[in-house]
Amino acid sequence: MIEDRVVLGHGAGGRKMHRLIRQLFLRYFANPALEPLADGAIIDTDAGRLCVTTDSYVVQPLFFPGGDIGRLAVTGTVNDLAVMGAVPQVLTLGMIIREGLRVDVLERICQSIAATAQEAGVTIAAGDTKVIEGGSGEELYINTTGIGFVDRKIRLGPEFVRSGDAILLNGGIGEHEAAVGIARSGYGSKTRIQSDCVPLNRLVAKVLAVGGVRVMRDPTRGGLATTLNEFSETTGLGFVINESALCLRKEVKALSALLGLDPLYMANEGKVVIIAAAEAAPRIVRCMRRLPTGKAAGLIGEVVRSPQGVWLRTRLGSLRPLMMLEGEQLPRIC
Amino acid sequence: MIEDRVVLGHGAGGRKMHRLIRQLFLRYFANPALEPLADGAIIDTDAGRLCVTTDSYVVQPLFFPGGDIGRLAVTGTVNDLAVMGAVPQVLTLGMIIREGLRVDVLERICQSIAATAQEAGVTIAAGDTKVIEGGSGEELYINTTGIGFVDRKIRLGPEFVRSGDAILLNGGIGEHEAAVGIARSGYGSKTRIQSDCVPLNRLVAKVLAVGGVRVMRDPTRGGLATTLNEFSETTGLGFVINESALCLRKEVKALSALLGLDPLYMANEGKVVIIAAAEAAPRIVRCMRRLPTGKAAGLIGEVVRSPQGVWLRTRLGSLRPLMMLEGEQLPRIC
Repeated sequence: MIEDRVVLGHGAGGRKMHRLIRQLFLRYFANPALEPLADGAIIDTDAGRLCVTTDSYVVQPLFFPGGDIGRLAVTGTVNDLAVMGAVPQVLTLGMIIREGLRVDVLERICQSIAATAQEAGVTIAAGDTKVIEGGSGEELYINTTGIGFVDRKIRLGPEFVRSGDAILLNGGIGEHEAAVGIARSGYGSKTRIQSDCVPLNRLVAKVLAVGGVRVMRDPTRGGLATTLNEFSETTGLGFVINESALCLRKEVKALSALLGLDPLYMANEGKVVIIAAAEAAPRIVRCMRRLPTGKAAGLIGEVVRSPQGVWLRTRLGSLRPLMMLEGEQLPRIC
Repeated sequence: MIEDRVVLGHGAGGRKMHRLIRQLFLRYFANPALEPLADGAIIDTDAGRLCVTTDSYVVQPLFFPGGDIGRLAVTGTVNDLAVMGAVPQVLTLGMIIREGLRVDVLERICQSIAATAQEAGVTIAAGDTKVIEGGSGEELYINTTGIGFVDRKIRLGPEFVRSGDAILLNGGIGEHEAAVGIARSGYGSKTRIQSDCVPLNRLVAKVLAVGGVRVMRDPTRGGLATTLNEFSETTGLGFVINESALCLRKEVKALSALLGLDPLYMANEGKVVIIAAAEAAPRIVRCMRRLPTGKAAGLIGEVVRSPQGVWLRTRLGSLRPLMMLEGEQLPRIC
């Protein structure tokens, strides 16, 4: 059941948000493009297969180790297009600024947006600015909507996933959420944790060229465990990942232990989960490892017919169920 | 010069906002698509002439006579596409919700979005939800980004405007801002003022079929006077409108007199300013008057070589200069 009032957990990417989407938004907005609950929609037009995706960014603080809200707003939307198999072309930029934001802060964020857009090879096609009144602190919300085109030969989706497929990931988990968490604590300058915030469209293009990819998704809010739960719910299959195969920086491990967070549920902003045919997996891993955004790529698990659901095979060999995130980890991490 | 900190006026559609756009955003994001500062960008792709536009909506209160933030978020973006000559196809929907918003309020807004999207013939292709913490009152910000296609035969832009062209408008001015203003005062239920908030894509399509249109724009924030100032700055021509030809509801007149607002600078959400060849003007006016959204359409002025700038020919025959809005009228009207 949905609560009477919206709570922070409704925005956290977990079960509460899925309920809100299914019980409210899909009831009113259902249509073939929106239905699959993927990161974006593919619309077949006379003019080609258009892919569109939208995201708002409300991260606090505006700057964190390894990134800022501007870099995040470009990266997050570019990555959503990329995992849909689209070549990102243009972004729109909607800014909601709270009055009192320093103009030099806004300028640094604009510089970061421009630099990240160049890095990803996209242009800003249209923009909008609104200003809302008072409050304390520096506040800025950014919406980016991305448009790209999907080659007619590319067919991706959970419906192509089969038992026996490989689960691949391009590196360490939890780094974005850890970086934002530590920045919020005020110790940001003293840590070596960096957000993994990076555009993945070039890596994804190379992976697609290898072949064998069934579906991809970027495990942002709710982390790796939530993304795999989405796949499991859609496909009815089991997703087993190996603890020993996961890459976890020791700083992320220390911070998550300290705060009682589980890295498997922590947000990433430069990671892509790839479900691929088992025989293609070694080639895809080799391909990713040659790229700066995939140096720590690896085979982290496999798709099974049973048990259904999502499971962590621990270092001891036991299976631990990974449910969908119920409430949230940190609010406003993206 | 830009101030040190962002102020409400930077979001008001007038000169302050134009300075922020030119001196900050265009410095970092300049590219051929963004440059014209129109309501949207037209991007020539292999796949056709794609039109994209983005807008965030922060109106307070969420419900006002004649509309609500949901209706506004669909209408505003559909109209931005329409005035670019595009046939609107899909919208994306990014919601930023302040925790504590009542779910039944959110549901009414979703109903309104769905109904308005159907009215305009567009679908919601992708969505995103973020929740931000606390604060008082019911708060919701909506970004909609719209995508449409422009027929290759349609060529619109201020570069086609000529001295002697006609200035046309499809009805009364200031009604949206007046409706929001009266709602904010708490007297919303006692007034007959209604926001003009309505999708104009069908009216615009019929007008384009008549022919002779040079450029169109929807006079939202900053009102009719600001839109004409944008045309004047881009073309270097003069835009003279006749006070006696303007349609002004007596309630809007009374409210603006009471609050010291000028209806020429008040926001509209169901109006389109059309600059057209003089010989086509009577046919376009007749076409509009046959439609529910154009019943009070009329020829309101003409484009002249000199004097440059924007002028109101008063009922007494004198010319009053209409400068671009310097600060703002009411904040958060859209």
